[in-house]
Amino acid sequence: MLTQTLPQTPGEAWAKIRSGAWRGVTSGVAPGFVQANLAILPRELAFDFLLFCQRNPRPCPLLEVIEAGQVEPALTAPGADIRTDIPGYRVYEKGQLTGEVDSLLGLWRDDLVSFLLGCSFSFEAALADAGIPLRHQEMRCNVPMYLTNIATNPAGAFSGPMVVSMRPVPHDKIVRAVQVTSRFPATHGAPVHIGDPSVIGIRDISRPDFGDPVEIRPGEEPVFWACGVTPQAVALNSRPSLMITHAPGYMFVTGQRDADYAVL
Amino acid sequence: MLTQTLPQTPGEAWAKIRSGAWRGVTSGVAPGFVQANLAILPRELAFDFLLFCQRNPRPCPLLEVIEAGQVEPALTAPGADIRTDIPGYRVYEKGQLTGEVDSLLGLWRDDLVSFLLGCSFSFEAALADAGIPLRHQEMRCNVPMYLTNIATNPAGAFSGPMVVSMRPVPHDKIVRAVQVTSRFPATHGAPVHIGDPSVIGIRDISRPDFGDPVEIRPGEEPVFWACGVTPQAVALNSRPSLMITHAPGYMFVTGQRDADYAVL
Repeated sequence: MLTQTLPQTPGEAWAKIRSGAWRGVTSGVAPGFVQANLAILPRELAFDFLLFCQRNPRPCPLLEVIEAGQVEPALTAPGADIRTDIPGYRVYEKGQLTGEVDSLLGLWRDDLVSFLLGCSFSFEAALADAGIPLRHQEMRCNVPMYLTNIATNPAGAFSGPMVVSMRPVPHDKIVRAVQVTSRFPATHGAPVHIGDPSVIGIRDISRPDFGDPVEIRPGEEPVFWACGVTPQAVALNSRPSLMITHAPGYMFVTGQRDADYAVL
Repeated sequence: MLTQTLPQTPGEAWAKIRSGAWRGVTSGVAPGFVQANLAILPRELAFDFLLFCQRNPRPCPLLEVIEAGQVEPALTAPGADIRTDIPGYRVYEKGQLTGEVDSLLGLWRDDLVSFLLGCSFSFEAALADAGIPLRHQEMRCNVPMYLTNIATNPAGAFSGPMVVSMRPVPHDKIVRAVQVTSRFPATHGAPVHIGDPSVIGIRDISRPDFGDPVEIRPGEEPVFWACGVTPQAVALNSRPSLMITHAPGYMFVTGQRDADYAVL
């Protein structure tokens, strides 16, 4: 039977997820430690995807690449196993979702390269610390995400529009929101747009393309950050023979602290 | 006959270098614009080298990768040609210097991948703006550089020690030196070490491994930054069949301003 107690450290999270003793969305797990998005691709696509991330650091802040034949995130999570230490995975073949699994042991191949990318949990903690309200957390829903008219810089097989997440920010907090998120380029960094959604090609702010709509109150502006859904969407657009990701909300917990990634 | 007037814009630099109308070390060319180190490798080494840069962002701050078959730095210097717009190149075969040329038109192959990496000119301008003296400029010599006991994070064929550059900083300026260089992670960023050189494996500060020795005066501490010589040294250690770099002091002038890379 699954316990409801959240693992408090990365090591506890890896062990309990691996053994099946705990499973759940990882929000709140190992507070203060960076959580990561996962994308796994066959080796023949690895150079292009790595280059895509290098060219698009805001939507694709790369934390670590685990080379073909290896399964340990030796730099960001020594001792962990990328095949077993995430509570849920999604498997895509030729761009189509073909399965959800809780372990990759049965699917693993030695030609798979794993990419860990920064996620918004880290900068949301920094925003909350700075007294900036997070409407989607108040409303207990997902952050709203939108396709934009901002083109990513293409690389090889990979191209497509940037996906952004939106958080309403009161006017007197907008400058501070830019400052605190600028300190974390490894987890999307500064906003990509502030204000009028139509400027970045969003027609109806009340109808997000992913996630849930949230209320924008009088005296607030919508503020948009590059979103980690971008690399997944772009990779799936190219219809790779195989791509594996984390399941939504089931992130990989790294052994590194949010503060390790602050630039100043 | 070569004119002594320094090109003032990136476009002027590219055109005059390409036509042979100007040649020289690029210090002072196109003030305010980022200059870059160049490393060119065959495609079969490109993934490992890209990954090495991703894993070692301080010594290897990657500005742009120009894919095999392409010669234009489309993101950082649209309109330039990487084969002709640098005043001097060095050619290495199996790790040995085999030639110096002023154009790559005769050597170019469609399997070559070009890497542009941030250089210290940008953060030296920021240090100077902050009133921090640059001893090697006062002494009109090269910055001293040292091999250290700091291991880089290996990737595939590439591994080896980090090379650092050293600048003496007065005690009352050390904090400011950390702050102003932290703003520029794309050009090596914050120091990797302050003070006692033996801590990072440097036995004799008066005998640099590259460049020239500089005086450290009473009331100053040596401050060490990751150096762009690192990726060149590491790549040459692996004895690639072919590697091409810029000649020392003959950098590539990009079309981007130093300020474009400031994180805050």
